[in-house]
Amino acid sequence: MNPLAPRPTIGVFDSGFGGLTVLKELVALIPGADYLYFGDTARLPYGSKSVETVARYAVEATHFLERQGANLLVIACNTATALALDQITGAVHVPVIGVVEPGAEQASAASKNRRVVVIGTEATVSSHAYLKALQRRAIEAREKACPLLVPLVEEGWVEHAVTEQVARIYLQDAFGDGFQGADVLVLGCTHYPLIKPLLRRVAPPHVSIVDSAHSTAYAVSGKIAEICVSSAQGPAGQPTLRFFATDSAEKFRRMGPNFLGHPVDSVEHVDLKE
Amino acid sequence: MNPLAPRPTIGVFDSGFGGLTVLKELVALIPGADYLYFGDTARLPYGSKSVETVARYAVEATHFLERQGANLLVIACNTATALALDQITGAVHVPVIGVVEPGAEQASAASKNRRVVVIGTEATVSSHAYLKALQRRAIEAREKACPLLVPLVEEGWVEHAVTEQVARIYLQDAFGDGFQGADVLVLGCTHYPLIKPLLRRVAPPHVSIVDSAHSTAYAVSGKIAEICVSSAQGPAGQPTLRFFATDSAEKFRRMGPNFLGHPVDSVEHVDLKE
Repeated sequence: MNPLAPRPTIGVFDSGFGGLTVLKELVALIPGADYLYFGDTARLPYGSKSVETVARYAVEATHFLERQGANLLVIACNTATALALDQITGAVHVPVIGVVEPGAEQASAASKNRRVVVIGTEATVSSHAYLKALQRRAIEAREKACPLLVPLVEEGWVEHAVTEQVARIYLQDAFGDGFQGADVLVLGCTHYPLIKPLLRRVAPPHVSIVDSAHSTAYAVSGKIAEICVSSAQGPAGQPTLRFFATDSAEKFRRMGPNFLGHPVDSVEHVDLKE
Repeated sequence: MNPLAPRPTIGVFDSGFGGLTVLKELVALIPGADYLYFGDTARLPYGSKSVETVARYAVEATHFLERQGANLLVIACNTATALALDQITGAVHVPVIGVVEPGAEQASAASKNRRVVVIGTEATVSSHAYLKALQRRAIEAREKACPLLVPLVEEGWVEHAVTEQVARIYLQDAFGDGFQGADVLVLGCTHYPLIKPLLRRVAPPHVSIVDSAHSTAYAVSGKIAEICVSSAQGPAGQPTLRFFATDSAEKFRRMGPNFLGHPVDSVEHVDLKE
């Protein structure tokens, strides 16, 4: 980023809509920025795909954001961060922040017992990105893939008995069998903040919940303060938001508000093949 | 197809693994054929995507199968059939058979009350392809999107209490509110045959279940008999099977047998961008 630029352009990338929970936290914390959000909705979800495929998709998308003028990139997708952060960082010319390190850092700060449970997609869990990030902080981690939670959130069943039953099955497995002492639950998928109240009820009462979306916004804020001429509170002014989607713009306008918490305007359809 | 060819090469296309349930029925009914199966696993699922995106993906995939020598194409994906059968048929030079018309035809033959419920993905239902196909046969249809059933099948919960509860919620909605008289349930998604025993328990007892995979295999068999020099029983000999996947070949080998019912060998990775 140009250190004299008073106002950053922050490119936020996700496979679909989940990264809007990260964008929401970013806008709340750093209102004086221009945001470009890219949702690769024509190829979502990434969570069940291979590392080669996810890396190729993520590099294409972040190249697009860089061409659009982003001078800081946020990989607001746990799967893409877990599988492809190094490839992305190597492929672009601006600073890149993923969601895994900030989540691991906050989990480390919160855990007294040094035992943490991480829930995420199949691909995030298989990569062991959280396990490694937490091990580097002397934390014993258990990762649990919860592939049904994303479809349940997308069905809108965020306060539904079925979702509660599914979450109970997954968390009993994660916190059972010798791991009862874990005292932090990391939401390692950007869809999960939408069911945080339900997860709060289902998780053991002594457990703190760490939301990667929230931790990541703080990490970005720190980076901006480091490289921006403005005050430590970050640049001033109102945010601007532009959205790009590889599947239908209309669907993005319809689904987006569930994740962002307010209307999603100015969505542009993008075809990365062209 | 060359009418003198004694042995057809049948190209079977699906967004992922579900079409293997159609391939299974095809191989059982028409063993003397060479099969090419294409699963667009790097871009699945199609069920929540727009018509433009699904049509583009499906045309790319069927062009690939035609280049590989297919002289008959089976669109073993309800979403692709519902959204893009006309575009596919217009884009290739060989006969194309989708799953919607055969399913509607069998449903029409089975329904005494002329009222039918169709369950499928969000995209299949939004297209109203089944509704229109059944209306042409003087059948009143109700379509119900069941977006959680595919992830539940892919989680392997084919005989799980949660899946039964979800199916009960969907089917109560579909057969309720003035539609109790419906006497046929069409499985309008190739994942659903895997939970047919569960759906049988949950559906009203008087309802017949029509499986599009099964109906489609019969339609293909009829087409082969029409254009092939062999007997009405179809060409003789053992089937050969080749599989192509856009995501990892290893994952295809691992997941495929759940749908096909026997091992999946000779999987080749394909990148349609190259």
